[in-house]
Amino acid sequence: MSDTAPKIAPPHLGEPYLLTPGPLTTSYAVKQAMLRDWGSWDGDFRAVTAEMRKMLLEMINDTKGEFDCVPMQGSGTFSVEAMLASFTPRDGKVLVLSNGAYGKRIAQTLDYLNRDHVVIDKGDYMPPRGEEVTAALRADPAISHVVVVHCETSSGILNPVAEISQAVYAEGRKLLIDSMSAFGAIPLGVSEIRYEAMVSSANKCIEGVPGFGFVIARKDELQAAKGRSHSLSLDLHAQWAHMNKTGQWRFTPPTHVVVAFLEALKAHRAEGGVAGRGARYADNRDVLVEGMRGLGFETLLKDRWLSPIIVTFFNPAHKSFDFNSFYEAMKRKGFIIYPGKLTVVDSFRIGCIGQMDADVMRQVVQAAKDSLNEMGVPDAAPPEQALIERARLAA
Amino acid sequence: MSDTAPKIAPPHLGEPYLLTPGPLTTSYAVKQAMLRDWGSWDGDFRAVTAEMRKMLLEMINDTKGEFDCVPMQGSGTFSVEAMLASFTPRDGKVLVLSNGAYGKRIAQTLDYLNRDHVVIDKGDYMPPRGEEVTAALRADPAISHVVVVHCETSSGILNPVAEISQAVYAEGRKLLIDSMSAFGAIPLGVSEIRYEAMVSSANKCIEGVPGFGFVIARKDELQAAKGRSHSLSLDLHAQWAHMNKTGQWRFTPPTHVVVAFLEALKAHRAEGGVAGRGARYADNRDVLVEGMRGLGFETLLKDRWLSPIIVTFFNPAHKSFDFNSFYEAMKRKGFIIYPGKLTVVDSFRIGCIGQMDADVMRQVVQAAKDSLNEMGVPDAAPPEQALIERARLAA
Repeated sequence: MSDTAPKIAPPHLGEPYLLTPGPLTTSYAVKQAMLRDWGSWDGDFRAVTAEMRKMLLEMINDTKGEFDCVPMQGSGTFSVEAMLASFTPRDGKVLVLSNGAYGKRIAQTLDYLNRDHVVIDKGDYMPPRGEEVTAALRADPAISHVVVVHCETSSGILNPVAEISQAVYAEGRKLLIDSMSAFGAIPLGVSEIRYEAMVSSANKCIEGVPGFGFVIARKDELQAAKGRSHSLSLDLHAQWAHMNKTGQWRFTPPTHVVVAFLEALKAHRAEGGVAGRGARYADNRDVLVEGMRGLGFETLLKDRWLSPIIVTFFNPAHKSFDFNSFYEAMKRKGFIIYPGKLTVVDSFRIGCIGQMDADVMRQVVQAAKDSLNEMGVPDAAPPEQALIERARLAA
Repeated sequence: MSDTAPKIAPPHLGEPYLLTPGPLTTSYAVKQAMLRDWGSWDGDFRAVTAEMRKMLLEMINDTKGEFDCVPMQGSGTFSVEAMLASFTPRDGKVLVLSNGAYGKRIAQTLDYLNRDHVVIDKGDYMPPRGEEVTAALRADPAISHVVVVHCETSSGILNPVAEISQAVYAEGRKLLIDSMSAFGAIPLGVSEIRYEAMVSSANKCIEGVPGFGFVIARKDELQAAKGRSHSLSLDLHAQWAHMNKTGQWRFTPPTHVVVAFLEALKAHRAEGGVAGRGARYADNRDVLVEGMRGLGFETLLKDRWLSPIIVTFFNPAHKSFDFNSFYEAMKRKGFIIYPGKLTVVDSFRIGCIGQMDADVMRQVVQAAKDSLNEMGVPDAAPPEQALIERARLAA
């Protein structure tokens, strides 16, 4: 974290920390920015939108000016759908790299869109690797696009997008990235990782409140998207063209959420941008993982795959452990944790993102310790099956 | 307005009043409700969602329990698109009653959805009437659904939905209503006006901040919508089924906006519900129209068609009048007005909705008077052509 980083303040009003992958705990300054109303047609708000788009673009180091940023109303999923509908032609074929709920959702979206697609399904948490992408692309020349989830928060794994990007472009195909929970904390500079478009949302690593997402895409892809959208509301080309012409969103924007996001972007820059934000989250994760391991908890993933976004822990094997009781005990202590999404072994997740630092993470570990004590769980070790699962993963 | 109505407070921080059809000026209490973060998965937020849906349903007096309320992320247009995609079968045919931008947008949405449709285009502001709906339906038995805009804010006209509903059901067809800017101030009780579904959004007459819309629909129509949606994000049946099963929104909701909206719903109830809110807005309109006419301005519509939502005034004919200068002069005085949307004659609009009362409207009139003086416009009378336009309208 840079020396100029603003100090992390505890949430006000005794509200709990949200140890979730977004919505997350935002700063009070971000929320205070919502204490006024804005006319969406007015010049003052158009200036907010312009500055927001500019600051987002700066994060990908697009020195050649080849990309543009298009915000889209709705949750992040709305932006993912808009990206898929806009940048995959109707006669294209998409390879989806899936290792969790968000990969599955991409395939489901393509079903709605009637886009031909195949899926490499890696199950709950195994990473898709470059060589299998290469093999799949060589085996099927009809595949025009590959879609990957940057950080799959189902497990917390940070997928190897650089290696995947190399594989995709070596075979002359195009890459789209769902960087929902990673953008702003994990570098995605276009000179380091090649892609056509990526998507994220307001309430993730930039620490805004939820209400819209955004797509950052090559301008030539945005241009080619004209007329492709299945949906008036989610028509990314129309939103882009209208915004560049008028400075306004095509339909009513969530004005308060947008203004809060601009405040969050300024705090992000003050913390040192992507590098500074990523360093604090990595620190949060390290303190959390070390502390939880000290209580006997085990992570689903080996260290090399742990993201600084969210970490999956196996439920303890002890008969007195019950997730709902643990959840409520943690909530009483001021921490809202997140249930797991694994299909094979019971688990839960703790997020590392939002207005929290290492001190807060130490309090989280202490709260977990106290909660286990209250439940009469002396040891948080997972069942044997959990460790067998983890052993399948490369170190 | 009821005696228990909360007093209208001026906007804080010297911000201007938004005399626009939403986003509009909200109360400080509504905005203050956004000063905390919520976990969208957590029980506390699920309770907020449940209470909001219940309070919205109460406004339509659905004594038989035949309707349900489904909120949808995005702007109001997203909810309109979701309604059209969900409640018109793919082999249906839709009659669109259009007299402004929002009617046109409905037809455009049906183009995206590949739904067969015909349009009765009444131009900029003439109201669609029951007898022409009857004639159109008799002439084309293939038409299964009719869609109408309740208050068309392009002109400010309050369309005769009761007479249209009677015509539609007399011919055995179904009605969908875009009540975006009217719901909450104009009655839409299901025992008075028959319809299958209606749509509105958070930032209109209920005086919340923008970020989501909602559809209120017959449960049997919601059930029949399964599998019909063209879009994962806008799949109203899936949102409904998931919400009823889990209490959660299917994808991340705009938590702060939702909590603010619940606060707005409580204020709406305290003001006397739809009747109380509608009475204040009608009072706002009456003060505004009388005052502006006193300055020489003329309304586009004859009195019987004026909504209590927004009023269109013709630009003065005087050569020194310029809308942009007038806009900036009004803004300097603390009032953001709205440009017009007429194609035939230049005009502007002033909204009557939001946290404003008759006192505020008198200030608006004074500001208009002062702005004209600054511009050197002694008389706000419109050009002859404007009065010819208005004469086309029935009294």
